[in-house]
Amino acid sequence: MMQTIRSIKKMQQVARKIAAEGKTTALVPTMGFLHEGHLSLIRRARKAADIVITTIFVNPAQFGPREDLSKYPRDEKGDIRKIRKAGGDIVFIPKATDIYPDDFQTYITVERLTRSLEGESRPRHFRGVTTIVAKLFNITQPDVAVFGQKDLQQAYVLKQMANDLSWPIKFVIAPTVREKSGLAMSSRNKFFSPEQRLEACCLYYALRTAEAMVKSGVKDTVKLTKEMRAVIRATCPTAKVDYIALSKPTSFLPVYEVDRGTFCLLAVKVHGVRLIDNMKLR
Amino acid sequence: MMQTIRSIKKMQQVARKIAAEGKTTALVPTMGFLHEGHLSLIRRARKAADIVITTIFVNPAQFGPREDLSKYPRDEKGDIRKIRKAGGDIVFIPKATDIYPDDFQTYITVERLTRSLEGESRPRHFRGVTTIVAKLFNITQPDVAVFGQKDLQQAYVLKQMANDLSWPIKFVIAPTVREKSGLAMSSRNKFFSPEQRLEACCLYYALRTAEAMVKSGVKDTVKLTKEMRAVIRATCPTAKVDYIALSKPTSFLPVYEVDRGTFCLLAVKVHGVRLIDNMKLR
Repeated sequence: MMQTIRSIKKMQQVARKIAAEGKTTALVPTMGFLHEGHLSLIRRARKAADIVITTIFVNPAQFGPREDLSKYPRDEKGDIRKIRKAGGDIVFIPKATDIYPDDFQTYITVERLTRSLEGESRPRHFRGVTTIVAKLFNITQPDVAVFGQKDLQQAYVLKQMANDLSWPIKFVIAPTVREKSGLAMSSRNKFFSPEQRLEACCLYYALRTAEAMVKSGVKDTVKLTKEMRAVIRATCPTAKVDYIALSKPTSFLPVYEVDRGTFCLLAVKVHGVRLIDNMKLR
Repeated sequence: MMQTIRSIKKMQQVARKIAAEGKTTALVPTMGFLHEGHLSLIRRARKAADIVITTIFVNPAQFGPREDLSKYPRDEKGDIRKIRKAGGDIVFIPKATDIYPDDFQTYITVERLTRSLEGESRPRHFRGVTTIVAKLFNITQPDVAVFGQKDLQQAYVLKQMANDLSWPIKFVIAPTVREKSGLAMSSRNKFFSPEQRLEACCLYYALRTAEAMVKSGVKDTVKLTKEMRAVIRATCPTAKVDYIALSKPTSFLPVYEVDRGTFCLLAVKVHGVRLIDNMKLR
């Protein structure tokens, strides 16, 4: 029987009891409106620990003032059903007023890793992410935490935070799940019409182009990004590229030549919806 | 037998084992060079949990560039002996390079509570304190943490941090221990000659003056601080007052009239040594 918990205190008591029984736990933090990508994280967590705790919390602190917090999609009933089917043991769904009481004033900042890409485009975004995940760590006390590669910079920022502040938690970064078309699964895909959804594949096509070019021997990042921009323009003429970057997760600063461990990361606004994606090139 | 642990990993393993045995732990974080004040915290911790973990770490991150990190007194052997006698079970003494590896870049900021008093006088000080204590929480995983009232703002900033980030830790704030003269115990007192040590009592005399005035019905904080300054000048003519504040620990902002829950806090430089002290006035 899957257990749904809404109180912080109750969740902490349950976590304590699990630890005292000598069982291990894996945490999958989500903002709900779950898709196959999330479910793959839950199944991955299933293999990593005795008890899988999935959290659902649309975290206001990680949305900017002009971002889509209020229209972020929600479907709690559907989510609970999906988590149960994917093998979750506990769902933790806290209230925003419990997570952020009136006198809340503490934030965690990871410095260098957050200066570029998502951190540059979305000021305070990572501060919101690190702070909520730290809270979820302290509330659920997991041995393992599972994050998706789609949010690559986020996963590495959180790993840095956990290492720097010595949370005894093992990190698992699970591969991005894609639709048949190649489009990376995202709760925000629901905003697209079928035609727009095809155009949203521009991120994937651009990444595959870069991958193919690198395979054929191209290393120059200027050439790669130029070609990627052309692919995006051809697939979705109205797309607005926020960034296309070639970086390693150790710094997320630009590399000028692709070598081992280089990822391509990009953020593109497609019909008003900001999408991100990434792929390891070598 | 008291156990001395120097490795973060080992400390985490031991903490995990203690939790799995169903035992509770109390943490007393210190910077070493222990005096009766620290030992009273250890004895208080002794009453609060099954296992008392004392940590010794002179934390570079909480010292400013012009502060006294390099001359901060140390006496590891003496400290270990004193902790054993006071009833400690575990001493954790990490290396600075393990606590802050080269790529360290994560900091915790408590916002409102750190804007005044120590936070105003010592930029980044509290950021260093919150970050190291968060690490110690994650390494030692205590059920209770014991802090001294002498560092009143620090204790409340840490409590705010723990509440905001949901560490399941109970806070105990233990009373300030004083020498016979009234001087609050401090590792920094060792820098004084016997004559200077007498002058260092100016903080205590000023606090007792304020206490007496409040008892006799004075509520006006301007009157109180004026009189306190006079007492300090009379006791130690060369003293430099950094601040004298009447505040409540809920905000550490100035109150204009003393009422229930008001503390007097002050920081004074005596012969080149910065001292702090405080007292509850009502």
